[in-house]
Amino acid sequence: MKDFIGEDFLLPNEAAIRLFEDYARAAPIIDYHCHLPPADIAANSRFASIAQAWLGGDHYKWRAMRANGVPEADITGHPADRRTFDAWARTVPLLVGNPLHHWTHLELRRYFGIAEALSERTAPAIWEACNARIAGPDFGARDLLARMKVKVVCTTDDPADSLEHHASYAAARLAGGEAAAAWPVMAPTYRPDKALAVEDPLAWKAYLGKLGQAAGLEIRTYAGLVAALEKRHAFFHTLGARLSDHALVQPLASLVPEAQVQAAFDKAFRGEALAADEAAALKTGLLLEVGRMDARRGWTMQLHFAAIRNLNSRMFAKLGPDTGYDAVGDSISARGLAVFLDALEAESLLPKTVLYSLNAHDYEVLASVMGCFQDGQVAGKLQLGSAWWFNDHIDGMELQLKALANLGLLGRFVGMLTDSRSFLSFPRHEYFRRILCGLLGTWMEEGRVPPDFEELGTLVRAISYDNAKGYFGLPGA
Amino acid sequence: MKDFIGEDFLLPNEAAIRLFEDYARAAPIIDYHCHLPPADIAANSRFASIAQAWLGGDHYKWRAMRANGVPEADITGHPADRRTFDAWARTVPLLVGNPLHHWTHLELRRYFGIAEALSERTAPAIWEACNARIAGPDFGARDLLARMKVKVVCTTDDPADSLEHHASYAAARLAGGEAAAAWPVMAPTYRPDKALAVEDPLAWKAYLGKLGQAAGLEIRTYAGLVAALEKRHAFFHTLGARLSDHALVQPLASLVPEAQVQAAFDKAFRGEALAADEAAALKTGLLLEVGRMDARRGWTMQLHFAAIRNLNSRMFAKLGPDTGYDAVGDSISARGLAVFLDALEAESLLPKTVLYSLNAHDYEVLASVMGCFQDGQVAGKLQLGSAWWFNDHIDGMELQLKALANLGLLGRFVGMLTDSRSFLSFPRHEYFRRILCGLLGTWMEEGRVPPDFEELGTLVRAISYDNAKGYFGLPGA
Amino acid sequence: MKDFIGEDFLLPNEAAIRLFEDYARAAPIIDYHCHLPPADIAANSRFASIAQAWLGGDHYKWRAMRANGVPEADITGHPADRRTFDAWARTVPLLVGNPLHHWTHLELRRYFGIAEALSERTAPAIWEACNARIAGPDFGARDLLARMKVKVVCTTDDPADSLEHHASYAAARLAGGEAAAAWPVMAPTYRPDKALAVEDPLAWKAYLGKLGQAAGLEIRTYAGLVAALEKRHAFFHTLGARLSDHALVQPLASLVPEAQVQAAFDKAFRGEALAADEAAALKTGLLLEVGRMDARRGWTMQLHFAAIRNLNSRMFAKLGPDTGYDAVGDSISARGLAVFLDALEAESLLPKTVLYSLNAHDYEVLASVMGCFQDGQVAGKLQLGSAWWFNDHIDGMELQLKALANLGLLGRFVGMLTDSRSFLSFPRHEYFRRILCGLLGTWMEEGRVPPDFEELGTLVRAISYDNAKGYFGLPGA
Repeated sequence: MKDFIGEDFLLPNEAAIRLFEDYARAAPIIDYHCHLPPADIAANSRFASIAQAWLGGDHYKWRAMRANGVPEADITGHPADRRTFDAWARTVPLLVGNPLHHWTHLELRRYFGIAEALSERTAPAIWEACNARIAGPDFGARDLLARMKVKVVCTTDDPADSLEHHASYAAARLAGGEAAAAWPVMAPTYRPDKALAVEDPLAWKAYLGKLGQAAGLEIRTYAGLVAALEKRHAFFHTLGARLSDHALVQPLASLVPEAQVQAAFDKAFRGEALAADEAAALKTGLLLEVGRMDARRGWTMQLHFAAIRNLNSRMFAKLGPDTGYDAVGDSISARGLAVFLDALEAESLLPKTVLYSLNAHDYEVLASVMGCFQDGQVAGKLQLGSAWWFNDHIDGMELQLKALANLGLLGRFVGMLTDSRSFLSFPRHEYFRRILCGLLGTWMEEGRVPPDFEELGTLVRAISYDNAKGYFGLPGA
Repeated sequence: MKDFIGEDFLLPNEAAIRLFEDYARAAPIIDYHCHLPPADIAANSRFASIAQAWLGGDHYKWRAMRANGVPEADITGHPADRRTFDAWARTVPLLVGNPLHHWTHLELRRYFGIAEALSERTAPAIWEACNARIAGPDFGARDLLARMKVKVVCTTDDPADSLEHHASYAAARLAGGEAAAAWPVMAPTYRPDKALAVEDPLAWKAYLGKLGQAAGLEIRTYAGLVAALEKRHAFFHTLGARLSDHALVQPLASLVPEAQVQAAFDKAFRGEALAADEAAALKTGLLLEVGRMDARRGWTMQLHFAAIRNLNSRMFAKLGPDTGYDAVGDSISARGLAVFLDALEAESLLPKTVLYSLNAHDYEVLASVMGCFQDGQVAGKLQLGSAWWFNDHIDGMELQLKALANLGLLGRFVGMLTDSRSFLSFPRHEYFRRILCGLLGTWMEEGRVPPDFEELGTLVRAISYDNAKGYFGLPGA
Repeated sequence: MKDFIGEDFLLPNEAAIRLFEDYARAAPIIDYHCHLPPADIAANSRFASIAQAWLGGDHYKWRAMRANGVPEADITGHPADRRTFDAWARTVPLLVGNPLHHWTHLELRRYFGIAEALSERTAPAIWEACNARIAGPDFGARDLLARMKVKVVCTTDDPADSLEHHASYAAARLAGGEAAAAWPVMAPTYRPDKALAVEDPLAWKAYLGKLGQAAGLEIRTYAGLVAALEKRHAFFHTLGARLSDHALVQPLASLVPEAQVQAAFDKAFRGEALAADEAAALKTGLLLEVGRMDARRGWTMQLHFAAIRNLNSRMFAKLGPDTGYDAVGDSISARGLAVFLDALEAESLLPKTVLYSLNAHDYEVLASVMGCFQDGQVAGKLQLGSAWWFNDHIDGMELQLKALANLGLLGRFVGMLTDSRSFLSFPRHEYFRRILCGLLGTWMEEGRVPPDFEELGTLVRAISYDNAKGYFGLPGA
């Protein structure tokens, strides 16, 4: 029997161990998509306790506790404290097979040096030990990134955002001498979801005011909105942004003459509710524009499909968004995706693109549609994104890797990202690399790939780091 | 090479064997959803032959024989006899990999003590041996349940049903002294599908007459129908019912003002065909009402999605429903499911709920949507139902267990049910438990869970029995 | 560690090896569905080089090269040559896990006796060695088939096709004495897609002219079109055709009175664009007619679902169809499929049918719907087709085999086909057989099937060859 999360965790044979140890373990990290707060990185913020670090904002864990019968009062009813931690400790043993179970124990090992499993019995000692470590040196937000060898971290930001923390952090990093040279680069990511959120015309119009202010324009027309988005895109570029990001339930594929897009804009701007087809036309038009900006500046567009959100109205009224009430949506329209990509490809303005779906049954659609738009100019130009959110577990990551291998070019994959709100989430890169090496090592042991460690190891290293470095072109990578 | 269906069947390592032997094997059974005829249990009915027991009504086996080129005349053309049995014996060896293949041989071992594989060659001896055993003592329907340590069995019943067999059986059990104390408790399940079957207004109206009679009401209005359903719900409760059950192709999510629901009722009651949206509104309204009843009485609502039925018109005309002409339907609407659950949750009247889909590609939608409605009041309040019907095989059960583990809380799972029409189907609980222990044992051997047999064994025992006992609150469990 | 693609490739244990060696390896091939050009078989055409053989028309490989950043100029910009070959050699090592990686190396071994892995380093020597072999004896198209023990090969042909190459080849085969007796039989397959392509009324009408000419009729009415299709169907039969084939995105299930079908025909015949429901009605009508023809002549109907095509408009304008711009479409409608099959079954004119979907998530729908139409007259009458196109890899083939085993009768499966345009693709039958034996051998080692080699070996041999021989009734099998 192997040790629980031991040295050879997820590495079932000698080939897998060698691939991981020699090619993956030491590779630095480019975390090209996450939701870490820039202010905390800039300020090197510290945690009050392990309860705050783990349970202060992680709605994955909240969901698990709710499913275990923990009253909401003990979850979000007060700032995360010992009581919250104890509820979590009681829940963990029942989470066998859930990635939270592995992540919890990986984090205990990698950040705190604790090998014991968390449970009601071990909770008191673990509470003390973690908090002692948290109160000690080198436990600021930025320190934690540096310790995990993060070279670049890409936050997720609204085009109207001032990016002040990105600017101040970059300045401090430059001015900080040798010590600061080891700090990760922090780049913003351009996520204009609110500019497309025309379902609520009033909130949308208010947002346009904010966006116009950031861009130094008054937005009154569709062209004005596009111009403001473009100005902010250019500004984001100066602070190192090389990716945009978009949350979509289904692909946007309502191609109509520009006059109709403008008419839809005008109607929403007057505060009128748009019909479904008008909203779709306006959103499609805007997303195509961002795609063109991405293409012109050599950026990468990320499309995240099939998440449905805020499904529990009572709890939404109480807690707002991003509190654990989202789910996997229906499969996406294969043709819709193709139509959207084709519209940009026809203009030779299809940017590098990463496709994600929260519905893992879409992987074959994504991987095969994207194969129709690989243009021979950028290796791996269209990417099947790493297993996302509810799919970010061993089965899900293997499924994504196999789908990509079966239908595309595994060797060009840009690899893992945390997509996380937690500064303690970076062992997920190790988790991914172990799964990758486990799969490849098994193939080698079974005679399914040539027994050439240098060649396969190079591929492991590429997927762990080198491909992301070359593909995204992020400063500091 | 391991023995065929030997002692360690489906248990690939020492950890799995220990989990099964020490924690699962001896656990009794709560079969919380099946289609056994109450009359047979009450009467402790006996079989005429192994042909009748196996092939008298099992349309799974009929389908397999049809696919093997057995003429219908030999399948349903006459009461199941030696000729039917021989056709089945010829079919079995070609069913390699099908759960029917395992079930057949598990049943031969567990009920008849026969270890030989069934085939044309072995059919004569097996025919004799089985029939001798069937003619012997302790081979009544109730005896068979008791032998498999069934503590509670939940039949599936129409609200208009008198439940006479439930009542007489309960009375006999009470009056039967020590011997009867070992009989399983038989509880009814409330399945009001016919009250929602408005597609055929005449048949529906006739059913309302029957339901009204059972409830002692004349149903002429929507409110009257709800009142009748409520009266029967209360009556079912007195006979031990703690679950309702609902067969749906897609989630019902047409929320409209009650006046529209009433109007739809009135129209159907006049014998007019409803438009699709009217029918959906009426059905949604009724199902919400049953959900409220379930919540108020602490029952559990079971929703079965994505089965499409009676697809072969020629054979439907000849044989009627439940004869082997059903199939897996399209994936369900994730949002539709969320809307339905949210409507009840918003009133704080969402009952404990078990979600099943015949389309296994829905598991992630089900498991993630249900995670939005776990409310911290009942542990595991929403459940991902065990792999159902066409998914009730090794791959399907592993898929369901992994989906639940990945997205939810495996430790709170209420486990297996037979969903069967056959009194010989109870080794399926053993089959499930072996698969569960095989999975967990493998995780332990691979270092994916802590090597703590007491903790993991408790979880195995919980999924085998204890969780169902605590969750459903069935009398006698 | 096992050798790369060694003797026991994909055979994980002794049982698997024995099943493959004793029952599968020597079995001949019935390739009942492919896209090989009849002219090349008739002429026993030869290749100019390995570049032409591998890269002259194989859009699977083109896609992989595009994804690897190879410029289109080096892919389709000139006839495949050393430069194309070198680009391919650079791409192969990055294709780890892709079936192209295995196929490439299987083909190098089986046709060229080369065991080295292809890469930039080995490309020069492999180029020389392959070309030397290609220039040598017995390397014509027909020779290659014979070497792989192909007994029958079914090409894919338009009803308007003269089938001249089939006729001349058959004549030459008859006249060729003992040597020619070893040639494979070449049968046409009836694929009337163009007769259903009413989306473009002008092209469709032009096609009707061509079809009428082939049939010796002038087509002016729906009845005339059906008559022409029937005449060609009869003609195809005389040249050995026993299958029809149909490319559909979704099942056709628009059942309307024949007058409406005729009206739709008339409208399209006048050159007017049909509404979606009119087009669906006309197509459904025509496909039902072909189904009836198939049933009356004892043929097998193949339905291929869920491929979406020509998604990249810029490249379609440049290169036309079948150049690597197709993808997996959305899941099919379960009910639509059932309605179509039921329409024929209700007339007792449902032919033997093979169902394929490019969306592998449809397997359970296909396998369970088809189970509703098995009629006990032909064993395995409805078949779940082997994993198709983008699914034709280890994971995909295992998925298809398991879906069929779980939901149907594996022992009646008609097995593998190449579906290929390449004369070097026949090791895919070996690949399939190894996967099949690997799965069954594993089940036997694990005690999941009886340890009866004769019985299981007979099943392996049946799936490899005997079932196809009996099921299709192809001349020469």
